[in-house]
Order: sequence, then C-alpha cells, then structure tokens
Amino acid sequence: MSHNSFGHLFRVTTFGESHGPALGCVVDGCPPLIPLEAAEIQAELDRRRPGQSRFTTQRREPDTVRILSGVFADDRTGGRQLTTGTPIALMIENVDQRSKDYSEIRDTYRPGHADYTYEAKYGIRDYRGGGRSSARETAARVAAGAIARKVLPGVTIRGALVQLGPHAIDRARFDWNEVGNNPFFCPDAVAAVQWAEILDEIRKDGSSIGAVIEVVAEGVPPGLGAPVYGKLDADLAAAMMSINAVKGVEIGDGFAAATLRGEENADEMRPGNGGAPAFLANHAGGILGGISSGQPIVCRFAVKPTSSILTPRASVTRDNRPAEVVTKGRHDPCVGIRAVPVGEAMMACVLADHYLRHRGQVGERAPFREG
Amino acid sequence: MSHNSFGHLFRVTTFGESHGPALGCVVDGCPPLIPLEAAEIQAELDRRRPGQSRFTTQRREPDTVRILSGVFADDRTGGRQLTTGTPIALMIENVDQRSKDYSEIRDTYRPGHADYTYEAKYGIRDYRGGGRSSARETAARVAAGAIARKVLPGVTIRGALVQLGPHAIDRARFDWNEVGNNPFFCPDAVAAVQWAEILDEIRKDGSSIGAVIEVVAEGVPPGLGAPVYGKLDADLAAAMMSINAVKGVEIGDGFAAATLRGEENADEMRPGNGGAPAFLANHAGGILGGISSGQPIVCRFAVKPTSSILTPRASVTRDNRPAEVVTKGRHDPCVGIRAVPVGEAMMACVLADHYLRHRGQVGERAPFREG
Amino acid sequence: MSHNSFGHLFRVTTFGESHGPALGCVVDGCPPLIPLEAAEIQAELDRRRPGQSRFTTQRREPDTVRILSGVFADDRTGGRQLTTGTPIALMIENVDQRSKDYSEIRDTYRPGHADYTYEAKYGIRDYRGGGRSSARETAARVAAGAIARKVLPGVTIRGALVQLGPHAIDRARFDWNEVGNNPFFCPDAVAAVQWAEILDEIRKDGSSIGAVIEVVAEGVPPGLGAPVYGKLDADLAAAMMSINAVKGVEIGDGFAAATLRGEENADEMRPGNGGAPAFLANHAGGILGGISSGQPIVCRFAVKPTSSILTPRASVTRDNRPAEVVTKGRHDPCVGIRAVPVGEAMMACVLADHYLRHRGQVGERAPFREG
Amino acid sequence: MSHNSFGHLFRVTTFGESHGPALGCVVDGCPPLIPLEAAEIQAELDRRRPGQSRFTTQRREPDTVRILSGVFADDRTGGRQLTTGTPIALMIENVDQRSKDYSEIRDTYRPGHADYTYEAKYGIRDYRGGGRSSARETAARVAAGAIARKVLPGVTIRGALVQLGPHAIDRARFDWNEVGNNPFFCPDAVAAVQWAEILDEIRKDGSSIGAVIEVVAEGVPPGLGAPVYGKLDADLAAAMMSINAVKGVEIGDGFAAATLRGEENADEMRPGNGGAPAFLANHAGGILGGISSGQPIVCRFAVKPTSSILTPRASVTRDNRPAEVVTKGRHDPCVGIRAVPVGEAMMACVLADHYLRHRGQVGERAPFREG
Repeated sequence: MSHNSFGHLFRVTTFGESHGPALGCVVDGCPPLIPLEAAEIQAELDRRRPGQSRFTTQRREPDTVRILSGVFADDRTGGRQLTTGTPIALMIENVDQRSKDYSEIRDTYRPGHADYTYEAKYGIRDYRGGGRSSARETAARVAAGAIARKVLPGVTIRGALVQLGPHAIDRARFDWNEVGNNPFFCPDAVAAVQWAEILDEIRKDGSSIGAVIEVVAEGVPPGLGAPVYGKLDADLAAAMMSINAVKGVEIGDGFAAATLRGEENADEMRPGNGGAPAFLANHAGGILGGISSGQPIVCRFAVKPTSSILTPRASVTRDNRPAEVVTKGRHDPCVGIRAVPVGEAMMACVLADHYLRHRGQVGERAPFREG
Repeated sequence: MSHNSFGHLFRVTTFGESHGPALGCVVDGCPPLIPLEAAEIQAELDRRRPGQSRFTTQRREPDTVRILSGVFADDRTGGRQLTTGTPIALMIENVDQRSKDYSEIRDTYRPGHADYTYEAKYGIRDYRGGGRSSARETAARVAAGAIARKVLPGVTIRGALVQLGPHAIDRARFDWNEVGNNPFFCPDAVAAVQWAEILDEIRKDGSSIGAVIEVVAEGVPPGLGAPVYGKLDADLAAAMMSINAVKGVEIGDGFAAATLRGEENADEMRPGNGGAPAFLANHAGGILGGISSGQPIVCRFAVKPTSSILTPRASVTRDNRPAEVVTKGRHDPCVGIRAVPVGEAMMACVLADHYLRHRGQVGERAPFREG
Repeated sequence: MSHNSFGHLFRVTTFGESHGPALGCVVDGCPPLIPLEAAEIQAELDRRRPGQSRFTTQRREPDTVRILSGVFADDRTGGRQLTTGTPIALMIENVDQRSKDYSEIRDTYRPGHADYTYEAKYGIRDYRGGGRSSARETAARVAAGAIARKVLPGVTIRGALVQLGPHAIDRARFDWNEVGNNPFFCPDAVAAVQWAEILDEIRKDGSSIGAVIEVVAEGVPPGLGAPVYGKLDADLAAAMMSINAVKGVEIGDGFAAATLRGEENADEMRPGNGGAPAFLANHAGGILGGISSGQPIVCRFAVKPTSSILTPRASVTRDNRPAEVVTKGRHDPCVGIRAVPVGEAMMACVLADHYLRHRGQVGERAPFREG
Repeated sequence: MSHNSFGHLFRVTTFGESHGPALGCVVDGCPPLIPLEAAEIQAELDRRRPGQSRFTTQRREPDTVRILSGVFADDRTGGRQLTTGTPIALMIENVDQRSKDYSEIRDTYRPGHADYTYEAKYGIRDYRGGGRSSARETAARVAAGAIARKVLPGVTIRGALVQLGPHAIDRARFDWNEVGNNPFFCPDAVAAVQWAEILDEIRKDGSSIGAVIEVVAEGVPPGLGAPVYGKLDADLAAAMMSINAVKGVEIGDGFAAATLRGEENADEMRPGNGGAPAFLANHAGGILGGISSGQPIVCRFAVKPTSSILTPRASVTRDNRPAEVVTKGRHDPCVGIRAVPVGEAMMACVLADHYLRHRGQVGERAPFREG
C-alpha cells in the first residue's frame, strides 16, 4: 500500500502539512557507501524554495533540511559522511506559517481545490494553507530526489518550463544553459522575457496560469523498467501525476504520437558503438515496451493554474450553503514554475528505484549478453 | 513490488505470452458474496477479441476464459456462483499461434517495438508474436476488469475512440449510444464513416495509425483516492500508461488545463441535493487533490501507431549489423481500437482498488459526516 | 518492499540509530477522526523507557515524543486533537548518547551481535551503540503501537514476562494485576521476588539472561486475517521475530501442540450467545486457518540474552585478526523485560492493520451473515 | 498487500481450492536465463505428493504441473528451456476430488479447523475438502520453491522431521542420508522404525498427531536480510507460520535461547579463511540482527495434529445448534510429514527473495569491501 509512499527498492515516504510543525520524508532502501551531505540536499531544495522572485509565493521559508538518520562519518570513512543502507529520515521545520490568513476558508471550499474532497473523504481537514494538499509537500520530494540522483552514476536529469499558459517556447531556441538565467527555468531566453511581462499582468490581476514542464534524463542505460504494471513509463506517469495540480503526462511524442503513422513513429536504428544500436530518432522518448532503450528519457507534464486566486468564485460552505470565495493567502501565480525541480526529483526517484530493481532481478550484467 | 501486478486491496497479477500455452491473471482481494459467472467475463472479452472486423488483427482467438478458483455455488448459495474472498484465477488458452510468421524477426529488432529493450534487459526474449509485450496480454486485464466492475455498485464505466490519427470526433455529436454501432467504438456516427475509409487506406498501405481513447466513470462517490502517491489520478495514469503503446494520459482538461487561467479552470459549485455540492463545470475530470469529487471521472490516453508495418524500416540485428525490417504477421492497423475495452478495464480495476482502500481506512461512512 | 516498514493499510515505517540525532516513525493509513494526544503515546513510551529500575540499561533517555504531522485541533473539532487520515510522523530525539563508550568495538565484532552481519551486508556500520540494530529502535514501535491501540475499539492488549532464563512463572498464580507491581512485567508475584535475586546475581556477574514474553489480545472479533501469506498468525510471527533478539514465536499451544493428538488439540464448541460459537478450550490461541476466531489471541516469543556482556569472548577484528571482546557500555541484563511493551505494540499494529484490511475487503458486515 | 502472495522481488502468488478445477501459482520476478524444465518442478512435487505411503492421505493426485508462461526454448538458447524474466505461471489440475465425502460438514464446523473462521470472515466457504484452507494449497508452494532453488547457486536446502508427537529423534544419530530412506523424512533410522509403529496405532485409532520439522540452508552468503521488518528471520517466521497447521517457529536455539546466559549464547569467532570469521558455534541459527552470517540457517517449526479425525467432537452448526462431528474424508494422520518439503520450499522462496533484494540494494559486491 502506498498512500504516502512511492518506489519499491528505493522507497520514499513523505509526511507533513503546510502549517504543521514540520514536513519531511523517510528514504528507505538507499544503497550504502554513498557520500551524502545535507548541503547537497539543501542545494536542490533551494532551487524549489519559495520567495526567490516576485513570480512565486511570498511565504518566506528557509526550507532547511536536517538528516536524522542513515548516514555515518568517522575516521574509518575518511571523515566523509556516507549512507549506511539504513533509512534516511529528513526533516524540514515550518517557520513562516501565517495561519490567520486561512481562517476565512475554514468553512468554505475553494473551487478547483482539494478542500471539498479531503473533507468528503476524511470528514476532517487541516485547512491551514491546504494542509497535506499544499505544494509544500513537494519539498520532501525534492529532498528525496537529491538522494536519488546520487544513486544514479552518469545520469543527468534536467527540467525546464516549456510552456506558460498558451505560450510555448521556440524549440529552435531550446538551450539548457538558459534555464538558470531566468526565474522560470525557461530554456528559451526570448520567451523568458515575454513570460515576465505576461506573468506580471496575471499576478496583478490576482489570477494564475497553467504551464507545461519537460524533464529529460540522459545517460540512462538500456534495460530499466519491466513489463506490464512495472513499466518505467507507467511509474513515471504515476510519479508526475502525483505532483499537485498535474493533469496530464506524456512520454516522448506523447499525444502527438496518436496523429502519426507507423512508419513516422518507428525510431529507426543503425549499428552503434559498443554493440548497442544507434537510434535515428526518439519519438518513443527513450522507453519501448516499458523498458529504457538507452536514449534520453523525455517526459512532459501539464500543470493547471492555481485555484487560489483573488477573483471571486461561486462555491458552497461546509453545510452546503452558497458562498463566494476569494483566496487572500500568499500563492504562486504559476505553480508550474516551482514544479520544475519537483519533476526532476520524481524522475530521479523513479529511475533510482528501477535501477535497483533491475540490479536485483537481473544483476549487474546478465550472463547471456557476455557470450 | 509489482513487475506484473497492479492494485493493492483489489490486486491483479497477469501472466502469459502471445504464443505460449495460455495467458491469464489472478485477482486477489475481491470481496466475497459477489455473483460471478464466466459468461460475464466472456462478454467483456468478446468486446476486445481480435478478428471481429477487417480493422483489427486477423488472428482468430476465441479467448475463452476459464475460472480456476475463487468461486463457489451450491444449494446454500441458491445455486448462484458467488465469489468466496479467495483468489480468482482466470485462464485463456492460446489457440491460433502461427509461430512461423515470426521466425524472421528472431534476430532483428523491429523499430518502435520492445524487441531490443527486452533483449537488453533480460538477455533473452520470446520473440514469437512479441511474447510478453504483445497486446494479447491485455485480454487478462479485460477479464480482471469484468470482475472489478462487479465490485463497484452503481458505477458506469464507458470508453470511446475520440480521435483516429489526426481526425478527432465532433464533440457536439458525441453519443454513447453510437459506440456499439461501428467497429471503432466511435461515439460520433459521422466520424465513424469517415474513419472506415481512412483506415481502409492505411490498411492497404500496410501502415498503421495512432488514436486517442476517452474513458468516463459515472456514479463514483466522492472520497476515493488518497494524498500524494496514492492519488486516484496517479494510479489511473499508471494504469493507462501500462497499456501497450500508450504514450500520454490526461485527466479532465489535461494538457489544455495548462493554457487556462485560474478563474477559467476552477469548477464553481452551488448547493446540491443531499448535502453534497453541485458542480457547474468539470475541468478537473472528477478528481481534486487526488481524491474523487463525485463528478464523472474523465481520463484520456494516446496510443501510438503499431510499429509492426509492411513499410521497410532500417534497423539492426542482434549482433549489431544493419538490417531492413518488414513485419509480415497479422497486426492491428490501429491498436487504439481494441484499447477501448482495455482502458475501461483499467479504470474499473483502479476504482475497485480505491473503493476497497477507502472502505478499509475510513469505513463505509466516517462518523463526522453524520453529525 | 519493507526493509523498515510493516503493515499494509496501517503501515509503520521506522528510522533512526541509537546515537544519531533522533529516531521515529511514520504511521501511514491511520483512520481519521481518532482523538490522539502526544501524552497518550508518551504513556506507552514511558513503560518501555530505559533506566527505570536497576534491571534495565542505565542510559537516561526521556524518550519525549513529538507529533510532527497528521493531527489537527480547532474549534470545529471541539478543541480535541484528531487524526486527519494523513501520515502521522513521530520523532524522539536522542539525548544521552555517550559515543565514546563504544569506540573500542569500532573494529571488533561482538559475538552474538549484529556487528559482523551489518558490516558484511553494507560494508559500513554505525557502531555507536549498535546503530540501527540497537533496541532503541523499538521505541518507535511502541509509539506506533499506541496509535494502533486507538484504532481497535474494544480490544485489550496486555503482555507479561512469563519466563526469566529457565525460571517460568507458576501458571496458577498468573494475575494481570501483578504485572504493574514489579520491574519485570511479571504476572506472578512470587516469581517476581525470586527473579529480582536471580537478576541481581547476573547483573553483578556482568552477564545477561534470556526470557519468554506472552502477549494476549482480548476482544478481537472473528474474521481478521486472510488465507496463505496474509494469515494473521504469519504476520504476528513476522512482527514478533522482527523485534531485536527474538529467536522463536508461538501461537496458542505452539510447540506443545506438536506433542498432542487430534482430539486433544481440537477446541470443541457449543452454541454461544449472539449466534457465535462458544469455545471450550483455546489450544489454537485464537487463530484458525490464519483467521481470528473471536477467542483471545495468545502469542509468546523467546528473547535471547544480550550479547553485550562483561565476560571476555573470543572474536575477530574487521581485518580478520583474533581479538577478545568485553562490552563495557550500558546494557540491559535482560532485554526481555523491556520487550514486553514492544510485543504489545507489535500485536496492536498487526491487529490494526488486519482490522482495516478486513474492513476494506469485506466491509463492516458481510451481507450473507445478516440473513 | 499480500493476501495470497509472498516475497517482494521473488514474488509468489498462489491460487486454488482443494476441490476446484485447479490450483497453482504465479512466480513474478524470477531472474532470466535460468534453465527450467517442468520435470525439475515435478520432482519436488513428487516428494510432497499424497498417497505415497500408508502414513499420508489416500487421495490419489498425480499433481502434474504445467508451465503456462515465462520460459522459452529454441536454437538460440541451445534448445534449453530458459526463464525469460517474465512471470512464470504454474498449474496443477485437481483430479481425484470426491466431493460427496464432505457434504456432511457443509453446515457443521470441525473443531480446530478453519471452517468457522472462513465463514465468519467471508460469509461463505467452499467446504469441499477444506477449500482454500486445505493443505493442497501447499503444492503450489513446493512448485514455486523448486524455481526458487534454481535462483540460489551453491545453496543446499534440506528438511527433516525431528519430532513426531512427543517423540524426538536422537540428535547423535542425525544423518541427512537417512531422510530419503523412510516415509517420514526422518534423519534418525532408529526413530523411523519406532515412528512407524506409533503412527500405525494413531491411524487405526482414527486420530492424528503433531510434529516438528527442521529446515537447514547451507551455503547462504553473509549479508542477506535487512533491519527491522525486512529481517531474514522475520520473513522466515512468516513463511513457516503461513503453512497450514503451523503453531510455532524457531531460529537456531529458539525457545531454548531464552534459558541461556549471554556468554553461553554468544557464538564466538576466530579468524577464518578468505577474510570472513569462522564461528565456533551456531546458537544464532545463522542469523544475527536479521542478516545472514554465512553459517547454516536453521529453522524449526511445530505442526499441530490434523483436526480431521474419526473421534467424535462437540461442535455447532452454522445456525448455532449443537452438533457432534466426525470427519470421514481421507486425511493425513500426521500432516507434519508432508510439511517437510513445504518447509524447504518456503525457505528457498524467502532466501531467493532476499538474495535478489540484497543484490538490488547493495549490488553483487559493495565497493568498500574490496579495499
């Protein structure tokens, strides 16, 4: 069962509410002997941290992570802090909770938000800042992802915002080096400038906007994944869809593949170096039959606009009376922006899990292939 | 772990290769005392069965299902065959294997197919008809889905092909009653006529085409699902992406939601009957925060074109030499068609699992809601 | 996968090392709307806490628990703190670590201890106080068990030490009320006096001794458990065997059942009140075919003597040279004593999990039984 | 969830009732490229098969196994049938069902049997031959165990009956070579002769008797297992307790360890060959801290006497009226005998699972150990 866990051999369990004392996660199954410092996790958290530009929520959370278990350093390890194979617990204390901001939505459901469904399921909800349904939970994922990256030698995982509302980047200008140069993780320098204007407008309107994120993993060896429900893309789809506000996931050409004919879609091959085929295209996004092909793994996901907006919306109260809702708290005008490092983290966790699963079932190398 | 299983409380494990002796599944966790006859499962299988029109593979498989365990009938049960709560094993014997058809692809990888990746992972593959990666595996899912439907009283699950290649239906003509009137599960009578011509052309070219399927579940109570990785939509995404050839999954507005502003996307509410809110729109596709809202659950997925085509494609052999591949076996020109009942089955299995999980954690009704 | 987790619907994941910053657990799947205060968990922890008599380790740990998530209180809940259905994270900070005590066993393996096997598995170990293999980990179990108890209305779970070394209690003097009157959780007042003398002797010798614990759950309804690997007794056996130093588990008559004839062992029945049978004996320990019978569930487990002793033992160093080991740290002369509340906690967790699993698969009541 | 499954990376799901059409299992996660013939599985099944001597049930079941999936042979594999990494489904058809034998217990519960508890849980039971609670289910385990053995190169797993009722073997006469020379899997030639007389008596009385089985695995490398709930001994305890009629499980000295002092119980070490320590004793039964030590793994379990006996016992009917029960079907006077190969199979499955889990988390060899 996995209400709040994901992965199997590399297994992450997260906990925490937006305005509770702390949030965090337990990473179980991380291999031993991997150097791991809190600073490495912190660096990833800092990329997701709120309040870094005017385009994200103004809540001021340092998101300082503390490693509670699972690492060890002494002179035997050369003073380096190494993982020990036991569960790694991480904790991030909540600092800047302003619970009074949310008192007005205590009894009224925000349209498009999880307020009503949590109440319908559990008969109770921690409404302060969205409680467990808050995007703050994703900090725990990013922390876990930082550990997952270290499990994957030679794999590079990068994400970018490729569409803001209806405004897509120009693929011809895609440049990973631009991603760090603007507050949007945008790989297109021209689009980034335009988006700043667009988002300023939306922010001033008290509105919000959706986005599309693309995450690419390079250096993944062929063979990760498994048939049927253990498909690498099935796990990626679940991982991305489990991020707050995500409404769609694609691998490779995704929905565009539905428009193609067989000869257009089939990625041709020619003999490559080292005995593996060289692919002439990557419509498949690096996954065939649920198993990685050795090509870059390409995953995109769509994030809906935040439902916490200043425009009044018709709703109902807890006792089913009509109400109008305006959400005054501090919110992201485009939650898709901070979803970029979260998507990377989920990709890392899924790949780390499948790497360990593959090593378990098949071993470092299968005997047949050596002959 | 779940290489070949899905679900938790309603758990399905499938097995079998395209040209092996049999395929099937074990359904573990089905509630007891549910009337279940093989004929009910057979009826669903017959909707997915190959060879029913010129638009699907001409392999002639009766797909006769046999219940091996988990049901019981005698005079105490009034002669009805009821589930007993123990695992229900289902077996479908393969009848029309023509293994010789596939001997030529023994040593060559079909572009766009799982041939290479299975070999890369396991060092071996049952290449006959695609082995485990064949769409024949989905028969087991449809059988399991027939049982799952019986676990969900009052829920209606229907699927339709809403796009064939680039040709989408006209939403204004959407009519569930049309779905059974054409060989495409198409809800638009006009589009169905056009599609027949288009697909005849593609079939004669020895080519194939992609498609988009929409599955809708009505009558789902609010409250199914769970936070984070137990999200109902995360499980749906994994379920649909685990179907062969699927490259994208959407819930509700899906990728279109990324283009919306917050006030457009937020489904407003007004007081409804029975204490539950009435929604004025369903951009969310019936799921908010990973939990069902009581609205229809709407899921779409994209299927790529079959890579088994008559057009020659460049590829490599197992020992990394150049080769040209033409796939002569019997194949579906549009695998998306038969994916419609498969998508319905996966929706049913995911909902049955979440229904039992909810009942387990929260009970039939939570005390707070009664007050 | 479950390296450090147990349970399915009521799922507990523990973390932490003896001398790390903190230990704790995440309880996922707890039903919502259950009143839960930290003080209730603390009360159970205090029963397991070290340093309460001269017969347990002199390490002074307050074992103060902090609830990090999953509960909520405000005026809507009548001021009571209730579970919300989201994961409950608990943290206990380590206070009285004296790491220098353990420096001498850094490179030498204690015979009978996990030192060598952790090193063999992971290539590294946190040797300070036994790291993850320390009995301190069981504090997290007791905390989780305190929550599990609240999930089980009407169930009473009690444990007792019924054998210290070769010295068993007199069954005729068994009195649950005595358990709290002595530092051994001993239900036999006479034995408790004798045991104090025996254990003083052992303590002065710098030695240690084994023990047998009995845990009984009363008020468990019939029907919990499941066939084959979901057997209630299989899960209890795993739960008890997972406690440090446990080497054997019995249900009901246990090993003595092997000596019986069929007519002696079969617990006869006569018509009981409320439609359920009344049993005339309980050789089965309340479980038949893996499913609870409604009788008291009786489980016993054997704890070996601590291997951390002052008597010198032959061993080897990490680089395989001969060595003699004396363990000077603070240790329990009989770890079995503090295993009593741990065994109760494990019983509670297993029963809570099976209660929710049963409710999920079968519902609050199965329709057939009403007829 | 695991109602009818066990293991994680090597995962076995069983199905089938005593008098249904068939029973079997799906083994998911078996590594690829392992030679596997049905005859190898059959050889293990034949050791468990009923009707081989007058001391087991006279039901005549050939227990012929059929491999439905997961293996492949052609000239590429040198004609050998190899596992492919996909799920291996095994089916055994039931042949000699005499359902009329059981009609009298349709409405009456056999004391000591699962009749009442299945009914209490599910509101229905397949009473024919005990349905799912029949020992026939263990055939599927033995079949799975035959595959598990092939996953464990260099490991020898053997079982023996070491106690029949109160009559234990003489440890000084323990000889593995004797196990195949008598119908009891008895390693003591003298005891075997005495047991034949004792069991003839019991059989003529229409009674039954309990037993103790010992299973030993040699050649297990150090490092298998994991902390806390992933302990190797916790999984063994669950595995053995999940066998029908088992009431107790011990590792190494088991309950006798409770009577020892620390210096007696601690297995001393001296420097061994190849860098690993040589142990001077094995009180621990090859497992320390839940992880294998490299010593033989020793597990014992107690089997209660069959409750299906000819001696009349007081019971109740389904509608709670008094009744007397005599079980006339064909039954084992000592089910413990045929539990020997079942115990071996469970040991094999648990070890195979932990071997793959270890390989997954840590890899074939951890880098630190090489230095």
